[in-house]
Amino acid sequence: MSDKNLQVLLARRPAGAVSEDDFRLVEADIPTPGEGEVLVRNHYLSLDPYMRMRMSDAKSYAKSVDVGEVMVGEAAGEVIASRDARFAVGDRVFGHTGWQLYGVVPGDRLHAAADARISLSAYLGAVGMPGITAYIGLLDFGQPKAGETVVVSAAAGAVGSVVGQLAKRHGCRAVGIAGGAEKCRYVVDELGFDACVDYKTPQWREHLEAATPDGVDVDFENVGGEILDVVLGRLNAFARIPLCGLVSQYNATDPYGVKNFRSLLTNRVRLQGFIVSDHLPRWPAARAALAEEVAQGRIKYRESVAEGLHGAPAAFIGMLAGRNLGKQLVKLF
Amino acid sequence: MSDKNLQVLLARRPAGAVSEDDFRLVEADIPTPGEGEVLVRNHYLSLDPYMRMRMSDAKSYAKSVDVGEVMVGEAAGEVIASRDARFAVGDRVFGHTGWQLYGVVPGDRLHAAADARISLSAYLGAVGMPGITAYIGLLDFGQPKAGETVVVSAAAGAVGSVVGQLAKRHGCRAVGIAGGAEKCRYVVDELGFDACVDYKTPQWREHLEAATPDGVDVDFENVGGEILDVVLGRLNAFARIPLCGLVSQYNATDPYGVKNFRSLLTNRVRLQGFIVSDHLPRWPAARAALAEEVAQGRIKYRESVAEGLHGAPAAFIGMLAGRNLGKQLVKLF
Repeated sequence: MSDKNLQVLLARRPAGAVSEDDFRLVEADIPTPGEGEVLVRNHYLSLDPYMRMRMSDAKSYAKSVDVGEVMVGEAAGEVIASRDARFAVGDRVFGHTGWQLYGVVPGDRLHAAADARISLSAYLGAVGMPGITAYIGLLDFGQPKAGETVVVSAAAGAVGSVVGQLAKRHGCRAVGIAGGAEKCRYVVDELGFDACVDYKTPQWREHLEAATPDGVDVDFENVGGEILDVVLGRLNAFARIPLCGLVSQYNATDPYGVKNFRSLLTNRVRLQGFIVSDHLPRWPAARAALAEEVAQGRIKYRESVAEGLHGAPAAFIGMLAGRNLGKQLVKLF
Repeated sequence: MSDKNLQVLLARRPAGAVSEDDFRLVEADIPTPGEGEVLVRNHYLSLDPYMRMRMSDAKSYAKSVDVGEVMVGEAAGEVIASRDARFAVGDRVFGHTGWQLYGVVPGDRLHAAADARISLSAYLGAVGMPGITAYIGLLDFGQPKAGETVVVSAAAGAVGSVVGQLAKRHGCRAVGIAGGAEKCRYVVDELGFDACVDYKTPQWREHLEAATPDGVDVDFENVGGEILDVVLGRLNAFARIPLCGLVSQYNATDPYGVKNFRSLLTNRVRLQGFIVSDHLPRWPAARAALAEEVAQGRIKYRESVAEGLHGAPAAFIGMLAGRNLGKQLVKLF
C-alpha cells in the first residue's frame, strides 16, 4: 500500500474536443473514514461517456464537476478501513469514489461486489451501471417483442454490447452499428448479433438498409448525429427509441441538426430520454438478472484496460473517439 | 338540391409549396347509395393540415391520395337518402366523404351530429377530430399536472386552441405560440391562455423565455422547425412532447435540422408521435367531454369559413400558410 493518494482533477472546461490538458494529476493524503464511512482502495476506475457532460457547465441532468474538483466516476476495489458495520476490511466493493486511488464513501452509498462468480471489474460493466442502463433502457423503454428488429449504436461498447445480447435473448433481430471491422466482427462473431454495420465504410447507409430488411422497431440510441438520422429513416410504425446517449455530440460546439425528425411523427414513435440513476428501484432486479446471465455465459463482455491513474485522461479521450472495445477501465493496483 | 355533384381531385403531386394547379374541380353525377350506405349532402368541408401529407407519396401514416382521386377529408351535412336503418333523411351527420358536394358513406363509418346544443360545423372542429386530437394528445400523452407549464404551437388553430383551454382546465399555465398580433390577442383575450408569443416578431425567442419563467413541462407540438427547436431549449426535466404535427415542414423539400435534440436526453423527455385515428376507442369519451365543455361555454372556438367548393384549394393553401384563425372550413350549401 503506497502511503499517498493520487487524484485526477478537472483542470479546466474543455472547449470542443477534450485534451489531456483539461486534467491535472495531483498527490494528496489518503483520506480517513468518518463514522459510517468506508475507505476503499480502487482496483479499477470506470470511464464512461456521461463524464464528458459533467466536465461542461451546460445545463444537464447532473451537477457539473467544478474546476479543481476530483473527476466524478465509479470505481471498484477493496475495503481498507471501515466505520460501517456492513463492510469489513478486504470486502470487494464498488461506488462513486471519483478518479483517485483511494476514496472515502458513506456506507449507505457503497455496494458489495457480492457474487463470487462475477469478476470485480464486471461490476463496473456488464453487471454494473452500463449493463443496467442496457437492461432498463431496452426492456422498460424499448419494450422489444419477439421477431422485432433492435438497432443499437456504439454496439461494441459497454452498454451496446449488452443491449444486443439482451435483444437476442428476447427473440429479436439484433443489429449493431460500430466503428471499424474489428468491432463489427466482435459484435457478430463473439456477441452473437445478427449483423453489424461499420459506419466508417462509405456504404454504411446501404449496409444498414440491407441489415434491417424489415425496418427498425427499437433504436437504442447511444451516439446521435448522422447515425441517428439515418436510423430514423428506417423506423417502422410504432417504433420506440430509448435515448441513452449522444456521444457524437458531446464534443460538438455546433450540434448536428436532425433532419428526419418527421419520422417520429409519421411512424408514431415513442422516444424516451433516460438516465439510469433516475430508476434506482429497478437496479436490484436488473443487476441480479445480469449477474445470472453473465455467470452462465449467456452475456459476454470484453474490457479495454488502461494501466495506471496517469493513463486515465488519454483512455477517456480514446473512449470518446471510439478507440475502446467493450468496457473502458483503468487498472489502478 | 342541384342535380350534379362537384368534386375536387388531386391533379398532381405538389413539389414544395402547394398551388391551386395541384387541384382540379370537376362535375360528376350524384352517387346512389347501395345497401347499408347513406348519401350525404355536405354543408361544411373540413380543411386540415394532415391533408398536405396525403397529397405526397412519401411514406407516411396513411395511404396517399392517388392523382385523379377525390381529395380526402371529412365533411358535415345532412342525410339525403339512406339505406342504413340507423340514419334517416334530414339527420345531421359527419364522415369522410372527401372534397365534394355529395358523398356516399357506409353507415357504419358515418356519425350522427347528435347533440342539438352543438352546431353542425363544430363536429368538424372543437367537438370533432381536431378537438379529440387536442384531448388525447394533451391528456394521454402530455399528462399535464396542475401548476405545470404547457406550450402549444399553432395556438389559434383548431387543435391548439383546444389544447390551451384544456390545459387551463387542468390547472396549468397555458402559453400559445401563433403568427401575428391578432391571433395572439384572440388566444389570450378570448380563449384565456396566460400568454401568447407572436413568432413573427424578431424578439419572439425572448418573449417565449419571458412567458415560460418556470420552463416548459409539456410541448404540444404542431409546427416543428425552428419553433420546436427553441421550445426544446426551454424544457424542464421529465417534460413530455405530444408530437401532433410538423406543419412548417410539410411543404419543405429540405427539412429543418433540429439542433436541440440533446435536450430530449438531458431532460429525460418522453416524446410520443401520434395520429388520432390510432386511438379510436378513446374517441367517444373524448367527444362527450368536449361536447359538454363547448355546450357550457368553457371551451370556445372560432371558424374561418371559405365559400363554395371552388374556394377550397385557396383556403387550404392559406391554412398551410397560417392565414386562418381557428378551424378552417368551406361552406358548401
